[in-house]
Amino acid sequence: MQRYKLTIEYQGTDYAGWQRQEEGGPRTVQLAIQEAIQAFSGQSVTLYVAGRTDAGVHALGQVAHVNLESFNREMDEVEIAKAINAHLRSEPVAVLKVEKVSDDFHARFSATNKLYRYYISNRLASPTLRAGKTWYFKRPLDVDKMHEAAQLLLGHHDFTTFRDSQCQAKSPVKTLYRLDVWAVPEPTGGQEIIIETESQSFLHHQVRNMVGTLTLVGEGKWDNNDIVNALEAKDRTKGGQTAPSDGLYLVRIDYEGE
Amino acid sequence: MQRYKLTIEYQGTDYAGWQRQEEGGPRTVQLAIQEAIQAFSGQSVTLYVAGRTDAGVHALGQVAHVNLESFNREMDEVEIAKAINAHLRSEPVAVLKVEKVSDDFHARFSATNKLYRYYISNRLASPTLRAGKTWYFKRPLDVDKMHEAAQLLLGHHDFTTFRDSQCQAKSPVKTLYRLDVWAVPEPTGGQEIIIETESQSFLHHQVRNMVGTLTLVGEGKWDNNDIVNALEAKDRTKGGQTAPSDGLYLVRIDYEGE
Repeated sequence: MQRYKLTIEYQGTDYAGWQRQEEGGPRTVQLAIQEAIQAFSGQSVTLYVAGRTDAGVHALGQVAHVNLESFNREMDEVEIAKAINAHLRSEPVAVLKVEKVSDDFHARFSATNKLYRYYISNRLASPTLRAGKTWYFKRPLDVDKMHEAAQLLLGHHDFTTFRDSQCQAKSPVKTLYRLDVWAVPEPTGGQEIIIETESQSFLHHQVRNMVGTLTLVGEGKWDNNDIVNALEAKDRTKGGQTAPSDGLYLVRIDYEGE
Repeated sequence: MQRYKLTIEYQGTDYAGWQRQEEGGPRTVQLAIQEAIQAFSGQSVTLYVAGRTDAGVHALGQVAHVNLESFNREMDEVEIAKAINAHLRSEPVAVLKVEKVSDDFHARFSATNKLYRYYISNRLASPTLRAGKTWYFKRPLDVDKMHEAAQLLLGHHDFTTFRDSQCQAKSPVKTLYRLDVWAVPEPTGGQEIIIETESQSFLHHQVRNMVGTLTLVGEGKWDNNDIVNALEAKDRTKGGQTAPSDGLYLVRIDYEGE
């Protein structure tokens, strides 16, 4: 038996997330990859993932690990990636990289840092080429104010205000390393807003709830004090709306020794 | 009557191009916008476009002009854009900007420069989030060699080798201002290749035929001499393949006095 680390990219739009969180709906990214592994290897496996993304959330660098028995013929890591992808051709899921890891590597528990990115299309016209991949937000947003307010959320806090009621984490206390907000102007007016955030782990909906709350500051409805009060309230009803899944990307998972 | 310049964005995937070039197939981008204008204004209009993009080709900054009679109530340029977009909500087409122009402005004949961009996803795994928006090219490409060879196509030439047999231009002679090739490495291996080219006007399929030919150099099958010989042959059969429409974007049209 050999343990492998898989780095995975997917467009989350048509999936019920990495793993099913509710009854019914479309299938999951996890199932799609497990079936592809079974199809080429005949092995029925379970993938263990770093971050269980929700329905509609995308990934540029999701990580999962899997144990595989030896194959009929020897296969290196590139051949394994190609074999899995050959059975994923009809789906917007791809294995970008396969690496051998030791048996004590765990995609979730060995992770030291996660990087998420959120895109907001802040302009007059709705997105065409970026439909389903960004949050279309019509009203003008002040990104400098959003960035300034975001810095008040950094550090070790009880993030209950930004935690979904379905969240299964034992503790609402997390340490937020980074929450940056900036914009790229569009040539015909408006801007694309990018929000990047890093933490060892996030609560369920934490990124989307922080983004939704920061838009209140961007619109001028809230100021920095309102952000501090919301955080200190430790009450989900005191935070802003949950930003839609379309704009959220799991970008990178970091591990010790990389 | 007032003439307006429209700047337009679209995902070309599901359209028969800006304007129908062959019988049958899905509808055109031109028709989609003309119908939206008719729906809000009651006016049956014809759009005149800067660059007639082919089926599947995308646009970030296409330009067209249209003459409109005055409306029942006064409407400024932003209101006109919103009114058109309200009737394009179900389609991946959006008007980014509307500007009043004088009657001697012509989207095509007044254009002084056109900028096209072409994307190649040059990696092991097929694109997921970029499916339909980039050319998936598996075998490794040397972008430095591609860029060097591209410079041999700059200037005033007979571009028959890169001209589609259906091309309706009177002359195959064009002046190519710019043809740059560079790459952005992907974190897990492979690269995204970007090719940008500028000219006052291009022949039918010229960009896609130049891109397809440059990949021969990138793969090491051709060298700089082969590029020069192909250009001098003035014979389409001496050029490389036509790169697929998925990777091509009409980015910007320039006009005098901007």
